[in-house]
Amino acid sequence: MIKKLALHPDRLFSSNVNIRKVARSLYQVVKDLPILSPHGHTDPSWFSENKAFKNATDLLIKPDHYVFRMLYSQGIPLEDLGIQTAGDNKVEKDDRKIWHTFARHYYLYRGTPSRMWLDMVFSEVFGFDLVLCEKSADDYYDKINAALVTDAFKPRALFERFNIEVLSTTESPLNDLAHHLAINASGWRGRVISAYRPDPVIDPDFVGFVSAIRRFGEITNEDTSTFCGYLSAHRKRRDYFKSTGVTATDHGHPTAQTAYLDRQAIETLYATVISGLASPQEAELFRAHMLTEMAGMSIEDGLVMQLHPGVFRNHNQAIFERFGYDKGADIPVQTHFTEQLKPLLDKYGVNPNLTLILFTLDETSYARELAPLAGHYPCLRLGPPWWFNDSPEGMRRFRQQTTETAGFYNTVGFNDDTRAFLSIPARHDMARRMDCNWLAELVCEHRLDIDEAEELAIDLSYRLAKKVYKL
Amino acid sequence: MIKKLALHPDRLFSSNVNIRKVARSLYQVVKDLPILSPHGHTDPSWFSENKAFKNATDLLIKPDHYVFRMLYSQGIPLEDLGIQTAGDNKVEKDDRKIWHTFARHYYLYRGTPSRMWLDMVFSEVFGFDLVLCEKSADDYYDKINAALVTDAFKPRALFERFNIEVLSTTESPLNDLAHHLAINASGWRGRVISAYRPDPVIDPDFVGFVSAIRRFGEITNEDTSTFCGYLSAHRKRRDYFKSTGVTATDHGHPTAQTAYLDRQAIETLYATVISGLASPQEAELFRAHMLTEMAGMSIEDGLVMQLHPGVFRNHNQAIFERFGYDKGADIPVQTHFTEQLKPLLDKYGVNPNLTLILFTLDETSYARELAPLAGHYPCLRLGPPWWFNDSPEGMRRFRQQTTETAGFYNTVGFNDDTRAFLSIPARHDMARRMDCNWLAELVCEHRLDIDEAEELAIDLSYRLAKKVYKL
Amino acid sequence: MIKKLALHPDRLFSSNVNIRKVARSLYQVVKDLPILSPHGHTDPSWFSENKAFKNATDLLIKPDHYVFRMLYSQGIPLEDLGIQTAGDNKVEKDDRKIWHTFARHYYLYRGTPSRMWLDMVFSEVFGFDLVLCEKSADDYYDKINAALVTDAFKPRALFERFNIEVLSTTESPLNDLAHHLAINASGWRGRVISAYRPDPVIDPDFVGFVSAIRRFGEITNEDTSTFCGYLSAHRKRRDYFKSTGVTATDHGHPTAQTAYLDRQAIETLYATVISGLASPQEAELFRAHMLTEMAGMSIEDGLVMQLHPGVFRNHNQAIFERFGYDKGADIPVQTHFTEQLKPLLDKYGVNPNLTLILFTLDETSYARELAPLAGHYPCLRLGPPWWFNDSPEGMRRFRQQTTETAGFYNTVGFNDDTRAFLSIPARHDMARRMDCNWLAELVCEHRLDIDEAEELAIDLSYRLAKKVYKL
Repeated sequence: MIKKLALHPDRLFSSNVNIRKVARSLYQVVKDLPILSPHGHTDPSWFSENKAFKNATDLLIKPDHYVFRMLYSQGIPLEDLGIQTAGDNKVEKDDRKIWHTFARHYYLYRGTPSRMWLDMVFSEVFGFDLVLCEKSADDYYDKINAALVTDAFKPRALFERFNIEVLSTTESPLNDLAHHLAINASGWRGRVISAYRPDPVIDPDFVGFVSAIRRFGEITNEDTSTFCGYLSAHRKRRDYFKSTGVTATDHGHPTAQTAYLDRQAIETLYATVISGLASPQEAELFRAHMLTEMAGMSIEDGLVMQLHPGVFRNHNQAIFERFGYDKGADIPVQTHFTEQLKPLLDKYGVNPNLTLILFTLDETSYARELAPLAGHYPCLRLGPPWWFNDSPEGMRRFRQQTTETAGFYNTVGFNDDTRAFLSIPARHDMARRMDCNWLAELVCEHRLDIDEAEELAIDLSYRLAKKVYKL
Repeated sequence: MIKKLALHPDRLFSSNVNIRKVARSLYQVVKDLPILSPHGHTDPSWFSENKAFKNATDLLIKPDHYVFRMLYSQGIPLEDLGIQTAGDNKVEKDDRKIWHTFARHYYLYRGTPSRMWLDMVFSEVFGFDLVLCEKSADDYYDKINAALVTDAFKPRALFERFNIEVLSTTESPLNDLAHHLAINASGWRGRVISAYRPDPVIDPDFVGFVSAIRRFGEITNEDTSTFCGYLSAHRKRRDYFKSTGVTATDHGHPTAQTAYLDRQAIETLYATVISGLASPQEAELFRAHMLTEMAGMSIEDGLVMQLHPGVFRNHNQAIFERFGYDKGADIPVQTHFTEQLKPLLDKYGVNPNLTLILFTLDETSYARELAPLAGHYPCLRLGPPWWFNDSPEGMRRFRQQTTETAGFYNTVGFNDDTRAFLSIPARHDMARRMDCNWLAELVCEHRLDIDEAEELAIDLSYRLAKKVYKL
Repeated sequence: MIKKLALHPDRLFSSNVNIRKVARSLYQVVKDLPILSPHGHTDPSWFSENKAFKNATDLLIKPDHYVFRMLYSQGIPLEDLGIQTAGDNKVEKDDRKIWHTFARHYYLYRGTPSRMWLDMVFSEVFGFDLVLCEKSADDYYDKINAALVTDAFKPRALFERFNIEVLSTTESPLNDLAHHLAINASGWRGRVISAYRPDPVIDPDFVGFVSAIRRFGEITNEDTSTFCGYLSAHRKRRDYFKSTGVTATDHGHPTAQTAYLDRQAIETLYATVISGLASPQEAELFRAHMLTEMAGMSIEDGLVMQLHPGVFRNHNQAIFERFGYDKGADIPVQTHFTEQLKPLLDKYGVNPNLTLILFTLDETSYARELAPLAGHYPCLRLGPPWWFNDSPEGMRRFRQQTTETAGFYNTVGFNDDTRAFLSIPARHDMARRMDCNWLAELVCEHRLDIDEAEELAIDLSYRLAKKVYKL
């Protein structure tokens, strides 16, 4: 007999009856608020083309590195999961077989957020009432595939059903945003915007950096062989992004290092980096300087700046060589904000037009550095628990470690940061539940009044994201 | 209608009924114990002169960087809060207007310890029963000001009402302690002592260091142009402090680095630092050496040594230039105790006459370094959660992360470290409640017996501070 | 009147009634499972010779640095506790007097795991029903000593009574494993195996390293003056260990640094280190390279590899000079896994025959580095909370910070890592209770189903250790 799949209405709430009761009442206030998703990685073509998704494996396993990294960690080769290789290695083509492998190992996700998101997708999006296992694998696979070809499961229909008010994707400055323009022109009311992610033309360590700089010049009609032309290219491209509805930039750097070089020094450094010969130190210094330039441009054009530092990308050399980027092999490292942000803050930290949202994978910086920084500098805000920390325990630690010093109003609500489109409601639901539970704890320990908690629940679920991201 | 202000008798206790019941009973044992405040920054002239405080804004907002940093972080200029600038910038003079700004933004403190301290001051010290908000702002302002001019709200009367047994302030070696002498001579029974804080004559990076060294020589009649005379000046000044009732020294260094140079090396280094030309490395080495010298003198004279490392002071350059020190712009950094304390511990770590109390803003060192160090070295004790960590969650983490390795008896009870005099009872009350709650958790999980918990509650609230600080 | 000693049947479970009820039911499933102790430091001669233990002080105080470090931290000299010195300092010989000192200071252990382990030993192993204190000290001392001479308290009888299925000790490659061979040959059914701990012949900073290398060659009949011969010596000795039943190696390094040098570079480096003239950097590089070599050999011979980095050994210089190693003066430092393990992982990280179990004393690496690494690399597993973290709060933090990213199945169950033989059941009991409690929390917050929790309880208590350690 296959086990029942039933989402408990009180899931994620404390089992303490007092807290649970308050959490439940707070959750009632926010559970149906529209979703603001100001930071993510869905594919805009889904919404411009509105084609049906291919099948369960293609939609739920292959693009989700949270899902396949766990299987890989227990010895299942990525090839067996249909992950496309760079070379001509043998990759499993039978998507049903891959689905079975996934189902057979579904127990590995016990206690992980992936399990809760997946169960919620299975239950609420597809209506399953038995859990995924080897025995139910075929039924799942067939029913999901059958649903996906129907109109109700096309991207725009799901977007509407999910009650998404704004969905942000993330694109390179070299992207023409054709899909976003098409969506805007289509008459469809869904709001899908991009974010300006200039890493490919700012990070000299990015594969293809030199040619990206050349292309950047062509697109903008600027002479990117000079630093002055390069800055103009950024300005033009930011304006272009902004003209399509974009409100934010996004910066994924190895560290939070910032710098501000004098004009001659940065021009010399720029000449080095676009020659493709920058040393690691020079590459770091260039990224550091450019964060400060980006802050300056944000002050000019009002785009909200997001910084995601502290990941060692593509840590597994063999996997990187065979499969490329984003294969679950990005591993966090220590991150130092206090010293590293100072050059940027010295230059722009007190400018009232700057908003800089900080994310971290190094939770030790929450109480020690991030909350004190955000609890002082007017330009700084704390992004929600990010990536590995986007989980019940991660959310709990975030609030426990930032609230007392930064308060609630120096945070920016939740963002899902995902490429797993179907999991968006599940992720926001998890965040709302965990925030309501945290507020309920404060209420039950008489550290916060219930009327304040209700106001805060809405702020954390909706209003702060709307305000800080200028949505 | 304005919301009621009512402090719940069980505030800060777990909402688990079993824990709450035990916490409540433990709290009954300690709630009325006298307050020992062996580390703080109140102004001794308050108690020597016993003049009335000026008004609500001057007493509760302007000196409290916890309070104004939050307002500043949300875009309210410090000038609008009446914070005095170094230059001639326009600063708000209307204290009632400042009070209104504060009241209007009181929601920003939700979930912060400042909110709980302020509410307790409003309720218990001034008797308010409606919360502070825009509508109640005038009533608050008027009633507080009216109270402050009465005898019952003069500093000595409040000191007595607060049941303070000992209050320690902190002074530079250059201070003549005139206020402390006046208090001692006044016949008033209140015990207000100082602590020897030699940073201005130990830290070459301190503004005015070179002239402070000269002045240090004049005061002590020692030749501070030689290292030998400089050490003698310390000895004399420590003796002087001690003669007024002082029992402790306090050292606020950027890092926990210690060192012990041979005589020739330190004499050469001293010559460099008093020339005002020390490099950052030399300044660090001098501070490091001097911590070891201070430990040596503590062994001689019995003064308890306190070390507070790990803060990047005056991080906001613009604010520092305009407003100076202590404007809420001090941001913690990582702190390394294991390696950095070794030179001092190699020299004096097993001397039974040394007591060195360690504080940190880097909570990662609690379980990893501080508890193992304090659970081994006879001279080491752990100070309470400090500064940003002086909060319910900070206190909880401190006990969770230190108790199992260091036990309770290598900690030193609470100290409030505050310049906000009126908040002292609120802060000690918070600490007592949180400690009682932690003990209650242990009792309810059968990790501690109730009779032991009662003894510990008194130890943590009173006896440990009395013993370790030699009060 | 002396206080009762009674172990509560629900100790360590949450006082939340819902969680407690579930935890209790899960605990029933696992409490009587056999003990697998795949990593520890008991003395194999106990089991080969099966002689009676000497007395209470000799068994419970002198070998347990958890116990005597706390007494030392409160000013009791190690000499007074009978700890043997290197020189001829006066050491207390009266074991009864030492026992009294311990009993008088038993309150110091309040809130520590040592207290819970000791109470469980006193209650369950020896049957005491009054707590240890000054008044009961003699009774304790006499009764324990009387028991120890009986057959039921001889090492093998206790081993059987404790329901130990496998007990691993740890030996140097220079050890002949005579005791293990004797046990194997004795016909006694108890399974006591060793682990290959090559630090004395891998770490150039180890006292006696140069002569150990020579001895290593003699034992193996290899020319350890060459790197090639040195590697062969390892291979032979690993084979020898394996032939006695060994399944694992163990590596205690100051850092997690790994490296892989080319043949010429490592041969040159080897010549330097065996000359005894290696600089600290060269010693570190040699250890780093050898971790990678050991991983390579583990792939060949199948021995499971364990790495315990991040301790500053013998931090207290005076104690080290007088008393030597393992005197409670080992203090953790920050540990960096992401960068430091990369060379080893680049070489062997995707090899399906490697198992590398990682331990840490730096809990900040749990969520940031260890869980992401173990949740990706097929060869990596997370060891249980280690040393100072082998405690209720430490276990809770381990699960809270690793489960969501690494899942449960990239962890390896519990190991006690102890030389305190009598405490082994108490330690495993604590781990089982804490894991059941964590699972119960997940169940009660509807993050895990009860049937999954039951399966996991058995996995965490027994099956994972059995599988990963190849027992």
